[in-house]
Amino acid sequence: MKVVIVGGVAGGASAAARIRRLDERSEVVVFERGEEPSFANCGLPYYVGGVIEDRRKLLVAPKQMLTDRHRLDVRTHSNVLSIDRQQKTVHVRNLLTNQEYDEAYDKLILAPGAAPWRPDITGINLPGVYTLRDLKDADVLHAAVARGVRSAVVVGAGFIGVEVAENLVHRGVQVTVIELANQILPPWDAEMVSPLQEQMASRGVHFVLGASATQIVTDGEQLTVTLSDGGTRETDMVILAVGVRPENSLAKSAGIDCGPRGGIVTNEHMQTNDPDIYAVGDAVEVTDFNTGQKTQIPLAGPANRQGRIAADHICGRPSTYRGTQGTAIVGAFGMAAAMTGLSEKQLRRMEIPHERIYIHPSHHAGYYPGARPMTLKLLFSPSDGRILGAQAVGWDGVDKRIDVLAIALQAGMTVYDLEEVELCYAPQFGSAKDPINMAGFVAAGVLREDHPVAHATDLVSERPEDVFVLDVRTQGEWDAARVTGATHIPLEQLRSRLHEVPTDSKTIAYCKVGQRGYLATRILLQSGRAAANLSGGITSWQMANGETVGGD
Amino acid sequence: MKVVIVGGVAGGASAAARIRRLDERSEVVVFERGEEPSFANCGLPYYVGGVIEDRRKLLVAPKQMLTDRHRLDVRTHSNVLSIDRQQKTVHVRNLLTNQEYDEAYDKLILAPGAAPWRPDITGINLPGVYTLRDLKDADVLHAAVARGVRSAVVVGAGFIGVEVAENLVHRGVQVTVIELANQILPPWDAEMVSPLQEQMASRGVHFVLGASATQIVTDGEQLTVTLSDGGTRETDMVILAVGVRPENSLAKSAGIDCGPRGGIVTNEHMQTNDPDIYAVGDAVEVTDFNTGQKTQIPLAGPANRQGRIAADHICGRPSTYRGTQGTAIVGAFGMAAAMTGLSEKQLRRMEIPHERIYIHPSHHAGYYPGARPMTLKLLFSPSDGRILGAQAVGWDGVDKRIDVLAIALQAGMTVYDLEEVELCYAPQFGSAKDPINMAGFVAAGVLREDHPVAHATDLVSERPEDVFVLDVRTQGEWDAARVTGATHIPLEQLRSRLHEVPTDSKTIAYCKVGQRGYLATRILLQSGRAAANLSGGITSWQMANGETVGGD
Repeated sequence: MKVVIVGGVAGGASAAARIRRLDERSEVVVFERGEEPSFANCGLPYYVGGVIEDRRKLLVAPKQMLTDRHRLDVRTHSNVLSIDRQQKTVHVRNLLTNQEYDEAYDKLILAPGAAPWRPDITGINLPGVYTLRDLKDADVLHAAVARGVRSAVVVGAGFIGVEVAENLVHRGVQVTVIELANQILPPWDAEMVSPLQEQMASRGVHFVLGASATQIVTDGEQLTVTLSDGGTRETDMVILAVGVRPENSLAKSAGIDCGPRGGIVTNEHMQTNDPDIYAVGDAVEVTDFNTGQKTQIPLAGPANRQGRIAADHICGRPSTYRGTQGTAIVGAFGMAAAMTGLSEKQLRRMEIPHERIYIHPSHHAGYYPGARPMTLKLLFSPSDGRILGAQAVGWDGVDKRIDVLAIALQAGMTVYDLEEVELCYAPQFGSAKDPINMAGFVAAGVLREDHPVAHATDLVSERPEDVFVLDVRTQGEWDAARVTGATHIPLEQLRSRLHEVPTDSKTIAYCKVGQRGYLATRILLQSGRAAANLSGGITSWQMANGETVGGD
Repeated sequence: MKVVIVGGVAGGASAAARIRRLDERSEVVVFERGEEPSFANCGLPYYVGGVIEDRRKLLVAPKQMLTDRHRLDVRTHSNVLSIDRQQKTVHVRNLLTNQEYDEAYDKLILAPGAAPWRPDITGINLPGVYTLRDLKDADVLHAAVARGVRSAVVVGAGFIGVEVAENLVHRGVQVTVIELANQILPPWDAEMVSPLQEQMASRGVHFVLGASATQIVTDGEQLTVTLSDGGTRETDMVILAVGVRPENSLAKSAGIDCGPRGGIVTNEHMQTNDPDIYAVGDAVEVTDFNTGQKTQIPLAGPANRQGRIAADHICGRPSTYRGTQGTAIVGAFGMAAAMTGLSEKQLRRMEIPHERIYIHPSHHAGYYPGARPMTLKLLFSPSDGRILGAQAVGWDGVDKRIDVLAIALQAGMTVYDLEEVELCYAPQFGSAKDPINMAGFVAAGVLREDHPVAHATDLVSERPEDVFVLDVRTQGEWDAARVTGATHIPLEQLRSRLHEVPTDSKTIAYCKVGQRGYLATRILLQSGRAAANLSGGITSWQMANGETVGGD
């Protein structure tokens, strides 16, 4: 059997190696446009930033290794121009020699990836306007920074935008990030990424939110970016990070079906409408594991997994892809934001019933030195408590909690299961009641109606009438900051001053993070009053308002 | 309703607070023998070591807080001497005034904990022989160290022994650890804790394994510990850390059933044979979640959970305890060892069919600076791939992987599910193929018979006849160290030198960590030879031999 693979990074490289392991006799040809297959795509921003100093580190599985260990026929600098499905050949151009030739296949795997989108505005192709997709791009940016670029405009505040912005700051570049949405990481819930944005701003990143770039002009030395809000920014360079589009032209021109977002359509074995042609990675449309709907989610882990599944199926094994769950993480300046499953935004848009809670625990036992706060948001089904999604932001331990919840979501677990989770505990690693348990307790309390909650994100946008907002923190905390219109009764005095709390309107109690507010809510409910706890306390309120919460 | 709780730490304190939240009207009396309830038991070694500097940090929920916030009647320095089940009273002595009195209860919760075991040897009660259970013990040890103790013998290398040894080293004390087993952390699999022992030894901890203390004598200044191997150790102090025994005397004398290991017997609601008496925490016998058998597992997380469940049941809620899974972690000098579920030792003892694999991945992407190796051992069912247990040892990220596997085990997941796990990936947090995925790939490969494995732990004890041991690493690696009797053919040359591998005997291939050995095994199997991969490569071999693997 002869397998031809178009694209030698992530999904393509995984497929090639897996085929060799399963079938020592097959012939495997990998065409890669760039100079090296299987480079560390996700490391490129860190190479630009000098965090990864040695460029060779980016070559995870160099051509030589793939050739020697896996006996793969890896052809770099090779662009596949077309597919002849009748003849079962691909037409290839060697980019070094410009020679063109046909290569036959029994099975073809398309792993061309996705290309950075270049919006159709004046000046988008000027020198000094960059994207960051491959080694060549990274080299260009690396060299530009080394030449002494002093300022940069990053267009787009998704993963790449955030990571590039951080890394340019590491190199001493003045960075402005322009983002059309009113938040960074637009698919995520706004309140959950505001601490990361604050952190970036505190390290010198300037943000222009709710604006796009409308044109770029040059005076020969400096670029001037015009914004949709009428403003302009002078800059030495522009980096476009406004998302990616699946590379589907090769597939499309061969009559391979693509979806409405451009992704190549496959079945669960990663097989396209031509059963001899598979597609994997960022170029394909995937099933959202959470909703069963078709979508486009470019992630490295799923790309590798899909490559493995295509290889399995080609070698006669019935592996299937379960869909993409959307687990992701992004870090900047020591802080991390991570998520799995659906965001509240997505749940609202899809009109999926959901409840949510916020907690702000320490990443390990508070009594052990170095404990740092994190915020965890858990989204779950109000009918059966099933976990729908989770987001976390903070310092250490954010990745751990989202990984744990990613497994729980995969397993179809409920918030009741989280109450019973038994995790590692010694004081430098966690808590006897881990944040995961706490999230389970709070969420299950909501569903059992022991613990009605109100949400800061709702209160910020519309303040309900007839609500008595009760601050149960200490005098010192009250003096430092408070929610507008609140009344102050410290928790310790609540039982003796209960007559000060109205009986004819609902009380929303709050404290710093929600624990004392919960106790107050229990006292109020048992006194016959209508009450709810502001989930996550004033900390959630501050996050919903985009205010600084803690710091470095 | 009036609830009396005996013991105000972990389970007792959790129960008390939960009762108050559920029932504002109940009367809750907590008797605590010590000076404060709810202290950070697991923090005591770190207070002795000066890692936790401020003693007040250990008071997680001081008496005042429990009184003011939860309206609990907390009576410290109060020893409950007996229970009158007919009268439904407990008899209490105030340890400060020596006054005794009866206190009535409707429901009683026993949370007395477990006491350090003091072996019956000469000198066990000499001055200078300590245990570490409560604040008072910690104060005594802290003061002893502050007085300038220069040497210590720690008897027992369980959690407390390991943590105390590390912390005494932090204070400049010369530490000898004596352990009856031939390894530290005896319930764990020996090869998985040898790196932690190496690390402790490299920081100056002296180990005497396979020996016990048989007597302690004093010359008025120094203690001399005699060992079962005939040796002696002079020391300024002895810390006994040879395990704990459930505090069951109060329960027993009241006719409450206790199990063969001494633990108080309860049902799934934590109710004893007297339906008005509950028991929680280290004093109770628990069901092992993994086997369904009764056992004794003193852990803080489960204790807290049990307290909550007893409170729920008392307040009319049908919460149940699912059993203890045995998730635990211990750290020393930056290294961590963690486990969940069953160890191989336990599986063998119980004759539960199991398979296992070892991997040695980096804790995050190798191309990002600071990646450090860890070892992960996965135990699973050969019939259906169900996860039975996992152990890990290494530096950062050990807790994360065991937490993820703890959830997977709770959910009843298989190794096939681990192949599909979608975890957080950015290069500073993980890998596109996370160690969890890798463990799934390898284990599923074993079950699919794509990837037969052999085990270093077996080879060390008995070397099979007729086996061709094949080293497929580079010349440099081969020159540095090798498995006795191996033949060397680098992986890259294996296909062309296949004739050098015998066809009439089984080959065990190995490399550094198992990846190249796997590729070699695939090549050999497809050539018609019998072959297996040494799981985890020469790294596993070195661990099985207790050799140093990497370092700080």
